Amino acid sequence: MSKGGIKDKVAIIGADMSKFGERWDKNQYDLLVEATEGAFKDAGITKDEVDAAWVGIFYYFTGLSGTLVEDALRLDGKPVTRCENYCASGMDAFRNACFGVASGAYDIALACGVEKLMDEGGSGLPGFKIFGHPIYPLPSAPAMFCMAATRCMHEYGWTKEDLARVAVKNHENGLHHPKAHFKSPVTIEQVMKAPMIADPLGRFDCCAMSDGSAALIITVPELAESYAHSDDYILVKSNAISVYTMAPWYWPSYDFTHFPATVKACEMAYKEANITNPRKEIDLAEVHDCFTITELLNCQDLQFCDRGKAVEELKKGTFNWDGETAINPSGGLKSFGHPIGATGCRMITEITKQLQGRAEGRQVPNAKIGLAHNLGGAFSVCSVTILGKNE
Amino acid sequence: MSKGGIKDKVAIIGADMSKFGERWDKNQYDLLVEATEGAFKDAGITKDEVDAAWVGIFYYFTGLSGTLVEDALRLDGKPVTRCENYCASGMDAFRNACFGVASGAYDIALACGVEKLMDEGGSGLPGFKIFGHPIYPLPSAPAMFCMAATRCMHEYGWTKEDLARVAVKNHENGLHHPKAHFKSPVTIEQVMKAPMIADPLGRFDCCAMSDGSAALIITVPELAESYAHSDDYILVKSNAISVYTMAPWYWPSYDFTHFPATVKACEMAYKEANITNPRKEIDLAEVHDCFTITELLNCQDLQFCDRGKAVEELKKGTFNWDGETAINPSGGLKSFGHPIGATGCRMITEITKQLQGRAEGRQVPNAKIGLAHNLGGAFSVCSVTILGKNE
Repeated sequence: MSKGGIKDKVAIIGADMSKFGERWDKNQYDLLVEATEGAFKDAGITKDEVDAAWVGIFYYFTGLSGTLVEDALRLDGKPVTRCENYCASGMDAFRNACFGVASGAYDIALACGVEKLMDEGGSGLPGFKIFGHPIYPLPSAPAMFCMAATRCMHEYGWTKEDLARVAVKNHENGLHHPKAHFKSPVTIEQVMKAPMIADPLGRFDCCAMSDGSAALIITVPELAESYAHSDDYILVKSNAISVYTMAPWYWPSYDFTHFPATVKACEMAYKEANITNPRKEIDLAEVHDCFTITELLNCQDLQFCDRGKAVEELKKGTFNWDGETAINPSGGLKSFGHPIGATGCRMITEITKQLQGRAEGRQVPNAKIGLAHNLGGAFSVCSVTILGKNE
Repeated sequence: MSKGGIKDKVAIIGADMSKFGERWDKNQYDLLVEATEGAFKDAGITKDEVDAAWVGIFYYFTGLSGTLVEDALRLDGKPVTRCENYCASGMDAFRNACFGVASGAYDIALACGVEKLMDEGGSGLPGFKIFGHPIYPLPSAPAMFCMAATRCMHEYGWTKEDLARVAVKNHENGLHHPKAHFKSPVTIEQVMKAPMIADPLGRFDCCAMSDGSAALIITVPELAESYAHSDDYILVKSNAISVYTMAPWYWPSYDFTHFPATVKACEMAYKEANITNPRKEIDLAEVHDCFTITELLNCQDLQFCDRGKAVEELKKGTFNWDGETAINPSGGLKSFGHPIGATGCRMITEITKQLQGRAEGRQVPNAKIGLAHNLGGAFSVCSVTILGKNE
């Protein structure tokens, strides 16, 4: 990060998401329409007012290029860019849309994300069996994160039951979200007894395969007052992406108890947003919980608690929807699944609704500053977006 | 395009490309290093001075995410975004890098592109046999463009020999470029007698499979004077992307003699750059010549001549390296092949060198304003970048 930044230069004036789940009823075009229609309506604009669009799509079989957006929305030849950054694809699309607006190139931009996983017969998340890597052999995602889990059990004394508490919390939160894929609570016992995926991660320690889409409409603050959320548009405080390396766990020195990309990305994001005490200043965060262990370690790396203390804080209720720092009040990837390109935009949509006081049934009290976070690849890529109320 | 734009807000301070060709000697990491090393040296910076990077990669088997750039260059956790927009991937990476700099977020950005096609055993260009499309059946690229060729033969009376003249011109130009894949001239007779690929397009009407990489270093003009090209940094006059639709040739009304995406993109680019008479004001252009017919039609759509007149102008020498509007003075995709993610950045690199008067052996006289153009997908996506001398 250089001396600059775009703090307070971009405003979110509309946001919405599709219903997440096994959407056999819609293809990726219709999913995108479902989310964008809602976002346009939320902003009080028509699609013709969009000057440019950015879309996060991870899998080539969901779609290539910006043509998916054009064919779905008929933007009549306007610019559309596809961003791909593993699990940070959607949030990186949002980040680049922010630069497009903040640079003065465009007045109104659409940032969206979509992924259609069901039709491909569950190719696996993240489907490394397709992509491989020219140099590194790569295991599946559960196999990567289970190593972090076992290491934390050794280093911190965490137990499988401790991990289960993350699943219980997030599924309880998801009950209250109308768009969540899973709206059933789970007990610690159910999580402990679930079929093993990659020891110690069982089925409920892992996020599911889902379809979904989410969309945001952004503009400069000077214009934001002309639209539907003239009083409560949300300001972008910072965007950060950190791309650390393909596979930190090939380093002989890697300790498997932190994610360097998260540490680096939030440093950049906090600096840009002038956040000096995240634990106190961040009211809520949507944190990448592809696995239960992942949420815990990211909470530490995001400085919401000290290293080794995430389970202790979880047990104390610090991360509950009404705790000091609400983590995944939406229900997270555990409740929504992980349609990769959509997730980052879904998180930003959730933070937006929370800050606007429109998170019916799951409202985090006194939400003023919120953070969205994704971790992608083989612990490689992290995106962090910080949003704040317009006041 | 809204009321804004980024004309003159971004300066190119360094540019270079790898040798293009069948690079069995290097993988995509090393190709990227080859281009970026040259660009860093050209700018007089070290890689540590880069604040953020953008990379154009089309095929997932070349690389996913920004991790390819990080692993090749070791940027120590800095932001890297992968842009994918079919054949406009590299130029869209450049465009987004420009927004990052113009927004004030970053001082120095790297925009690059790379593609490694040889190791995949020639999966085909653009490899639609892999990707398919959820709705439209898609033929190969030669099969798509041959339809435009036959239609132009019917509408305009163009002949196979006319198309051959494009190949002759471009291969003659490529002779003089040290980094070209093909450095052999071809005769009209050779082109006419070449094996048929998709009637009337023969082997020399089609660009080849190649590996390659190209990189640009950009900053704001205020800082450009601190670097190696303090006197002759190049200004970005406009960037435009038009995403029209997946396949215009499914429209019953489509005439197969123009590319709507090119028409739309250059309208936006000319407006932003204040170009009102492209034929007079654009001194040189790198125009997407994936096939001979493609260059001709794009010249018309870019307003370098009237519809139906491209062959006439070609024969008159208008598009020669020393003609009124030099088209593909580098030798184009015909001489360089088309490593998809790299091509747009290669074109911008070429225009940069030309405007700086550093195109040894192929210098276009009095080059002041240059244009780079890509057409991608099923006639779907077009990118146009206009550069100008700093004066």
